[in-house]
Amino acid sequence: MTNDNARTRLDAQMDFLLEADRLKSVSRATRLADGSRYENSAEHSWHIALFALTLSEHAPAQVDRGKVIAMLLLHDLVEIDAGDAPVFGNHDTAAVEAAEARAADRIFGLLPEDQRQHFRAIWEEFEANQTPEARFAKSLDRFAPPNLNIANGGGSWVDYDVEWATFENNVGRKIQAGAPVLWQWIMPRARKVLDRLALKRQDR
Amino acid sequence: MTNDNARTRLDAQMDFLLEADRLKSVSRATRLADGSRYENSAEHSWHIALFALTLSEHAPAQVDRGKVIAMLLLHDLVEIDAGDAPVFGNHDTAAVEAAEARAADRIFGLLPEDQRQHFRAIWEEFEANQTPEARFAKSLDRFAPPNLNIANGGGSWVDYDVEWATFENNVGRKIQAGAPVLWQWIMPRARKVLDRLALKRQDR
Repeated sequence: MTNDNARTRLDAQMDFLLEADRLKSVSRATRLADGSRYENSAEHSWHIALFALTLSEHAPAQVDRGKVIAMLLLHDLVEIDAGDAPVFGNHDTAAVEAAEARAADRIFGLLPEDQRQHFRAIWEEFEANQTPEARFAKSLDRFAPPNLNIANGGGSWVDYDVEWATFENNVGRKIQAGAPVLWQWIMPRARKVLDRLALKRQDR
Repeated sequence: MTNDNARTRLDAQMDFLLEADRLKSVSRATRLADGSRYENSAEHSWHIALFALTLSEHAPAQVDRGKVIAMLLLHDLVEIDAGDAPVFGNHDTAAVEAAEARAADRIFGLLPEDQRQHFRAIWEEFEANQTPEARFAKSLDRFAPPNLNIANGGGSWVDYDVEWATFENNVGRKIQAGAPVLWQWIMPRARKVLDRLALKRQDR
């Protein structure tokens, strides 16, 4: 049937795609909008790719929407090895970055060499957060979770005792940098829920 | 804060994106590669968008990869109302299509009018399965699940007592139509597992 001694380009691509399946088992700190369970990184990646498809007109500069979507489809694959580092958690940033770089070596390394370079470059552009595409992609990655938290009554903001100032610093600034219109939209909505949660904490 | 009487374009887009979150709760007949649980339609959509990003060179004709990916991000949204119709299940095709059309009316109808028309047209192009992009997208939608079944030892083929002829008819023909190279690749691998499952059934 197949000749194992002559591995093809497609064999390598399929190794990568099957390995990618494991992203469906990486759990995030955010719950679904209905609060029923934690979100995984694969479905999160789909959701924000759909955000990009729908909201690219709100990017502050002209962006290559296809590139933004490619970034978002690829951006969390490193979590297969490195896990998700929740935005309100305490991390050793250098250690997380080192683990993610090793993961990128291994996972993108499954691909044919030209494609490994191509996908790795897209991921690195996203991580570096310098181009309009990366900034917009990063802002969508930060913009989606508060919408889920608002829908389910607090979500990760409750779990991590998040206050407005922390939200503004860890999340707001990144949304603002890549998509000011989206930050203006979510700000009053997030503030309302975070203020209510702060009052509840006072009552405890 | 926000003025509910003056709903903006972004308000409508966000209604759509939050509604889309429910696709994460639509269960499919296919299990993850590790067999640990059933796959949902949101993470499946991410996975096959990644298939498109990785495998577009194997499309028989030049395809607009961005359009293929847009199709795959959108293709299952109708399942939020209509549910997933497993490929080996018995369905009243006309009833499924009617339910999906109603779902498309409602879900894409949340969007601003120009975007509703645009997304609806992409979904209808996918469903009609006539253009090279739609054929390739459809073939990826059919190509991903057998890879998971092979990885987890049978999956939905066991649940539905699937034989080679059924697989070739319900799945193979669609893969072949949009991506002959992928059908050639999966055929011997699927055959091996399906033949083994057939022998097991004889032993029962």
